[in-house]
Amino acid sequence: MEKTISENGETVADGSIRGYDSLHQLLSANLKPELYQEVSRMLLGSNCGKSLEKIVLPESANTLSLKHDFDLQALSFSADKEQMRKPRVVRVALIQNSIALPTTAPFSDQKRGIFDKLKPMIDAAGFSGVNILCLQEAWTMPFAFCTREKKWCEFAEPVDGESTKFLQEYAKKYNMVIVNPILERDIDHGEVLWNTAVIIGNNGNIIGKHRKNHIPRVGDFNESTYYMEGDTGHPVFETVFGKIAVNICYGRHHPLNWLAFGLNGAEIVFNPSATVGELSEPMWPIEARNAAIANSYFVGSINRVGTEVFPNAFTSGDGKPQHNDFGHFYGSSHFSAPDASCTPSLSRYKDGLMISDMDLNLCRQYKDKWGFRMTARYEVYADLLASYIKPDFKPQVVSDPMLHKNSS
Amino acid sequence: MEKTISENGETVADGSIRGYDSLHQLLSANLKPELYQEVSRMLLGSNCGKSLEKIVLPESANTLSLKHDFDLQALSFSADKEQMRKPRVVRVALIQNSIALPTTAPFSDQKRGIFDKLKPMIDAAGFSGVNILCLQEAWTMPFAFCTREKKWCEFAEPVDGESTKFLQEYAKKYNMVIVNPILERDIDHGEVLWNTAVIIGNNGNIIGKHRKNHIPRVGDFNESTYYMEGDTGHPVFETVFGKIAVNICYGRHHPLNWLAFGLNGAEIVFNPSATVGELSEPMWPIEARNAAIANSYFVGSINRVGTEVFPNAFTSGDGKPQHNDFGHFYGSSHFSAPDASCTPSLSRYKDGLMISDMDLNLCRQYKDKWGFRMTARYEVYADLLASYIKPDFKPQVVSDPMLHKNSS
Repeated sequence: MEKTISENGETVADGSIRGYDSLHQLLSANLKPELYQEVSRMLLGSNCGKSLEKIVLPESANTLSLKHDFDLQALSFSADKEQMRKPRVVRVALIQNSIALPTTAPFSDQKRGIFDKLKPMIDAAGFSGVNILCLQEAWTMPFAFCTREKKWCEFAEPVDGESTKFLQEYAKKYNMVIVNPILERDIDHGEVLWNTAVIIGNNGNIIGKHRKNHIPRVGDFNESTYYMEGDTGHPVFETVFGKIAVNICYGRHHPLNWLAFGLNGAEIVFNPSATVGELSEPMWPIEARNAAIANSYFVGSINRVGTEVFPNAFTSGDGKPQHNDFGHFYGSSHFSAPDASCTPSLSRYKDGLMISDMDLNLCRQYKDKWGFRMTARYEVYADLLASYIKPDFKPQVVSDPMLHKNSS
Repeated sequence: MEKTISENGETVADGSIRGYDSLHQLLSANLKPELYQEVSRMLLGSNCGKSLEKIVLPESANTLSLKHDFDLQALSFSADKEQMRKPRVVRVALIQNSIALPTTAPFSDQKRGIFDKLKPMIDAAGFSGVNILCLQEAWTMPFAFCTREKKWCEFAEPVDGESTKFLQEYAKKYNMVIVNPILERDIDHGEVLWNTAVIIGNNGNIIGKHRKNHIPRVGDFNESTYYMEGDTGHPVFETVFGKIAVNICYGRHHPLNWLAFGLNGAEIVFNPSATVGELSEPMWPIEARNAAIANSYFVGSINRVGTEVFPNAFTSGDGKPQHNDFGHFYGSSHFSAPDASCTPSLSRYKDGLMISDMDLNLCRQYKDKWGFRMTARYEVYADLLASYIKPDFKPQVVSDPMLHKNSS
């Protein structure tokens, strides 16, 4: 349900479709500056007095944002200077978007429409000197998995398919690494589907792919109707701009998945997602930041925007009437850092491009400062998990002896 | 540094010692009610339209709170009714407190002073019908581990020592399970120290103990000066009121530690802590809530309050001048639930008692709804950790071939 609260949080009598743009915009518009600063310290974690600095972007990028009506934000994280290493500042970006045409339009038109609406956003990233760009989960299509209809499988592409080719041109043009999350058709293995991120190098080459590790069976989404758990492990892709990994959507609920990318050396982990307000919005800022803190890496969280209406009604297994949309995808893409800080979020309603400068040296600085890996006692948990996965596992429970006395 | 912001967030010219009481109090005092409601939905996770209900406490409890000037809050989480199980509502409480006397007072007086200031808070819990109560980490003493002085070891007690005996009386009197986090002296193993939580059953019996699993080496705190990593695994204590566990302080930064208590079946995990503002305040609301979400259990987070000044100055290994206090312990104790909701926090400055009603059936309801354990693929991570702990582990890295071409 759309909120009837306007951009500055004024209650609107009725008929308002747009709500407020983001939590931080709401707070900033309604609190005195010194209060907003203190609330920001608590919420965005700009502790140690270091708040994130705004990046000045080229006029060409701002012009594209105005002309094509997408949210554009750019903020810089800070890190200490080191004596033995030079700073490794990279400019990283996230794109969130709604679909372009109704889900009843011919599929190829729908796909082409999304390609067209992304072009100015990718150009804005390119003009801004972005080094690494990640798109949202299954960005070439409506997120139709709630329907359980098989016809949407047509949107699937091989790893080197249409969308990868489209993005390879931009990768070369802008010397940019691009993460391309698609519904994948695996031609070499019986044409099965996967939920996959293709990593395109800054020379337009395909570096590799990663397949979504954890598949939801929640409410409308039993995605295993379409694809199963990924078989690519937890690869970290070493690019010229740093070591990156991709935790696709529902994998963000699994601390072990985040951990594994960290153990393999990731410095930035992207989380391309598709999730709606009533289901997950209060979790959204928690899980990514926790992963960044616990694993001493940066996280880029991306969620699509808008409400997608499907031609045939479906039910949610919640006893409520059938319906034609899954709910509102609330955008709110943002970055989190190992020092517990994070950027404000992109709009809950508009397409958007979020850009951040991050010195990857911050990752090791926080490993050294907090020592989480040194103190992690992985051997204890290796033993526990090895034991847990056996059918005869018995949990370590100490019962109050008085309990059994009472019941005997 | 104390903030010069008053209770309602007015900027105070100077001389103010008290800051605002909590983030939620600050927001509620400065936002219109309908805005505060929407901000709360995002921050406290009262999604699905269910906000936490205030619990009406007996007059005797409120009187104690006024007379002894401690913060008292009581809120109820909600859960669905089930057909096959009755609700299992338990009333759970957390106590946060400052020390009672200067750290220069005789040790036995300091300890007795803390015992005395806790009495009315424990009575208020008892009068309110609390079933399970948890105190803060090493509650019988100042958190002197920043000093690296060995004299504070005198505060250590055996598991059945003075503080346990003190609390056993209350456990019997109020039919209350009490978690007693102390500095433990292990008489049977060469008188070494541990950071330990003693679990006292509702009949006053000792059910068992748990020793802190992860020991910080961060800034002022290399706690391994005093005690080492715990040797008690991840026990879950089956009490008459539910299955509880204790993740002591720094263990909250370790998702694997939270996970292990979940695998062993915990329904409530307490996190008795001692941590200061500049170091960890932005992490504080993130880590506990993430643990509650990821592991489908309730979390009770407790942090001491106040600034503790020590007689001899010490340094922090940060190049700054020596000092006599570690910083401000910011309190902010609160509960988090498996449905991503949480209570507001207790005061950042005052002693406090936080009470919550929680239907433990919510844990399994959220396991069923989100299916995190069913989709967790523990066998993948058992393999990964078994491999990771070997010295010759090689991370799963896919390098851009163009990188090596350029460098050769």
